[in-house]
Amino acid sequence: MAAMTLLERYANLVVRAGVNLQPGQGLVLATDTAHLEIARAVTEAAYAAGAAFVEPLFDDGPMRRSELDHLSVEQLTADRPWVLARNAAWDERGVAFIALVGSDPTVFEGADPLRMAARRREESRTMRKVTTGTAHRWSVIGAPNPGWARQIFGEPDTDRLWEVVATALRLDDPDPVAAWRARAEVLAARAARLDALALTEVRYLGDGTDLRVGLPAGCRWTGGGLVDDSGMLFMPNLPTEEVFTSPHREHAEGTIRLTKPVVVAGQLVTGLRATFRDGRITGVTADAGAEVVRAQLDTDEGARRLGEVSLVDRDSRIAAAGVVFHNTLFDENAGCHVAWGNSFPFALPGRSAEERFAAGHNTSMVHTDVVIGGEGLTVTARGRDGEVTLLEDDAWVLA
Amino acid sequence: MAAMTLLERYANLVVRAGVNLQPGQGLVLATDTAHLEIARAVTEAAYAAGAAFVEPLFDDGPMRRSELDHLSVEQLTADRPWVLARNAAWDERGVAFIALVGSDPTVFEGADPLRMAARRREESRTMRKVTTGTAHRWSVIGAPNPGWARQIFGEPDTDRLWEVVATALRLDDPDPVAAWRARAEVLAARAARLDALALTEVRYLGDGTDLRVGLPAGCRWTGGGLVDDSGMLFMPNLPTEEVFTSPHREHAEGTIRLTKPVVVAGQLVTGLRATFRDGRITGVTADAGAEVVRAQLDTDEGARRLGEVSLVDRDSRIAAAGVVFHNTLFDENAGCHVAWGNSFPFALPGRSAEERFAAGHNTSMVHTDVVIGGEGLTVTARGRDGEVTLLEDDAWVLA
Repeated sequence: MAAMTLLERYANLVVRAGVNLQPGQGLVLATDTAHLEIARAVTEAAYAAGAAFVEPLFDDGPMRRSELDHLSVEQLTADRPWVLARNAAWDERGVAFIALVGSDPTVFEGADPLRMAARRREESRTMRKVTTGTAHRWSVIGAPNPGWARQIFGEPDTDRLWEVVATALRLDDPDPVAAWRARAEVLAARAARLDALALTEVRYLGDGTDLRVGLPAGCRWTGGGLVDDSGMLFMPNLPTEEVFTSPHREHAEGTIRLTKPVVVAGQLVTGLRATFRDGRITGVTADAGAEVVRAQLDTDEGARRLGEVSLVDRDSRIAAAGVVFHNTLFDENAGCHVAWGNSFPFALPGRSAEERFAAGHNTSMVHTDVVIGGEGLTVTARGRDGEVTLLEDDAWVLA
Repeated sequence: MAAMTLLERYANLVVRAGVNLQPGQGLVLATDTAHLEIARAVTEAAYAAGAAFVEPLFDDGPMRRSELDHLSVEQLTADRPWVLARNAAWDERGVAFIALVGSDPTVFEGADPLRMAARRREESRTMRKVTTGTAHRWSVIGAPNPGWARQIFGEPDTDRLWEVVATALRLDDPDPVAAWRARAEVLAARAARLDALALTEVRYLGDGTDLRVGLPAGCRWTGGGLVDDSGMLFMPNLPTEEVFTSPHREHAEGTIRLTKPVVVAGQLVTGLRATFRDGRITGVTADAGAEVVRAQLDTDEGARRLGEVSLVDRDSRIAAAGVVFHNTLFDENAGCHVAWGNSFPFALPGRSAEERFAAGHNTSMVHTDVVIGGEGLTVTARGRDGEVTLLEDDAWVLA
C-alpha cells in the first residue's frame, strides 16, 4: 500500500477507529463548508470502507447568519416534516455519524442570542438519537480550517494548525487507528478500575492546587471508547485522553491554579485561581479575564459548582502540541481538569434527573473545563480500599 | 439604498426576476460547493425578500466522484425514501427552485459512463416536478467559479469570468431586474407574434449559411419568461435571449456555417460547416473537431436531425462578452442557432410523444446547439401571411 497522506490518515482514523464503519452501512457526515477538503477525504475513506451511502450535512456560517438575521424565533423553531422523515429513516437504517468540528465563531458576532439559541425541537430530538448515546456509532473530531486557525494564531495559518492537530490526533504514529484503539483500551481499563474502587473523594495536589472533591455514591467513570447497543466499539471523541465522572456538587474544598489558559465566552483567561468552599467557588483571581469568569459563575445557581472531575496523564498529546486550541475537544484533554457547571447523566446511570440531583449531581446552563494538570501534579483518592494514588507527577500510577 | 455589489445584483436578479420569490415562500437552492460565495449571496437575497426558508442542495464534485467510483449501478439507482418525502414536501409547500450552474467537468475524467448515467428514478421524477414545468417557479443561472474559468481561459481566472458573465447577465444595467423583465416581455411578444403567423418554414441566409427548415403544423414558439400555474412570471434561464421551437425532423435543406465555436463532448469545434438533405446532416467539415461531431451524429437515428430552431438578435449580450463560455446556457444565446437532436415536448403542447413524433418531432439522446447568427444574417419565414422577414442583418425586424 502506498504511504497515506496526512489527510488520508485523518480520514481513515475517524472512519475506522471513530465510528468503526462496516461494509453496507450508511454514513451521515456533518461538516462545515470551511473544511471541504477534509469532508471529501472522509467521504472517500468511508466509500473505500464499504459505505452504502455518505450523506453530507453541510453547515455554512454565512448562510446560517442570514437565516438568523431574517427569520423569526417562531420560524427558527418550526420543525420541518421532511427533516423528521429523514432523521427517522437514518435511525432505522442504522447509520454511523461523523461530525467534523472547528468553525469560525466570528461570523456570528452581533447575532441575536435568542435566535441563536432557537432549536427545532423534534428535529433536534430525533437527530440526537443518531448523534449521541449508543444506538448508533458516532464520532466528533476536530477539523482544521482557516477560521479556527485564526482563533489560535491570529492568522488563518491552516498548515500550522494541521501540525498541532496531527500531533494531538497521533497522526504521526505509523498506524493511528491502532494507536487510538490501544489508547482507548487503556482509558477504558482505568475507568473500570476506578469504578471497582468505589471512590468517595479525589484530591488534586500540585503547585497552587489543593482541591478535595466528594463523589456521589455509585458514580461511574467513563474513558476511551464506548460500545454501541450491538456490541461494537466506537470513539465518540477524537482526540480523547480523559477518564472522568461527575462529583457531588456540595463537596469541593480548597484551591486550584490553572496550568493552561481557558477560553470563556470567546475570551482568553490566563493565570486563573479559584477557591472552593462547600462545593461553591467563593473567589476567583486571574492575570487576565477574571471578569468574564465571574460573570459566567453568576449565570445560575449551579454555575459555580463542579459538574466534572477528570483524570488525564502525561501521555496525552494535547499539551505536547503546545497551543490553546480554543476548542474543548482538544483543550480539556491537555491535562487533569475539573469543570464547573452541568453534570453528566451517564455518570449516575439509570436514574432520573431528580434522583441524580438528590444524589449530588449539579444542574446548570454552563459547563466549563479548566486544566489543572501538568508537571508535579499528584492525584489521590479514597474509597473501598482506603487511600490510593492515581497520578504521581502527572503520570498514571494506579495499578 | 447603498450601491449594490456585483454579487448582490446577481443574487437579487435570480431571486426577483428569476424565480419571482414571494414573502413566506420557501426556496431550494442547488449549488456547487465551488461557488459558495454566490450561494451565500443568493441565500441572503432570498431571506431579504421574505423567504420562509432556504434549503441548500450542495453538489460537490470530488464527493460525487467518490460515490461514482465505489458504488454499484444498483446502489446508484436506489431511491432513498427520505429524499422522496423531502421532494413531496417541497412540492406541496410550493417552493421556488434556483440552480447555480457552472461546474468543473474535469473531476469526472475517467469515471465510468454507466455509473455517471445512473439516476435514482423516483427521486429524479419527483424533483423534476419542482425543477421543470410550470407547477413551481424555477431558474437556472450561470455561476462563475475557478473550474469553469479554467475551461474558458485555461486558468482559474474567476475575476475575468465574472466580467464576461456580468456583461451577459446585464449586471452593468442600473436595474438588472427591470432590464431582464423588459427583455423577457420583448421575447414573449415575439413568440406570440410568430405563433400568430402559423409559420410552416424558416430560412436562415448568411455568409456560408442557407438553410430552409420546415415546421410541424401547430408548433408553438417560446421566448422570455414563463407563467406558472398560479399566473406568476418567472425566468427559467438566465441569461435567455432566444425565441425557439422544434422543427419537422424530415424537412431541412441546405448548408450552415457556424459563426461561433461549439463545445462537443468537452472538445472545442471551430469552423464547422454542415450540409442537410431531407432533414439529415449528410456532411460535416471543420477547421478543428470534425471527428467528435461526426461521432456524435452517429449516436442514434435522431442525432443528425434537427430538434430546435432558434432566433436571437443582436441585442443579445452574449456575443458582446466575446468568449466561448463552454456552457450552453450562455453559448446558445450568442446568436441565431439550430440544434441537432431531441425536440422540446412543449413545442407541440398537449400531445403524446407518439403524436409528436407523428407530427414531425425528433427523438435523440443528444441535443447540440450551434450558432449561425451574427452580422449579415437574414431570417425569413413562410406562413399564413405568406413570406415575412424576421431578422435582417442580425436585427429583429418583424413588426
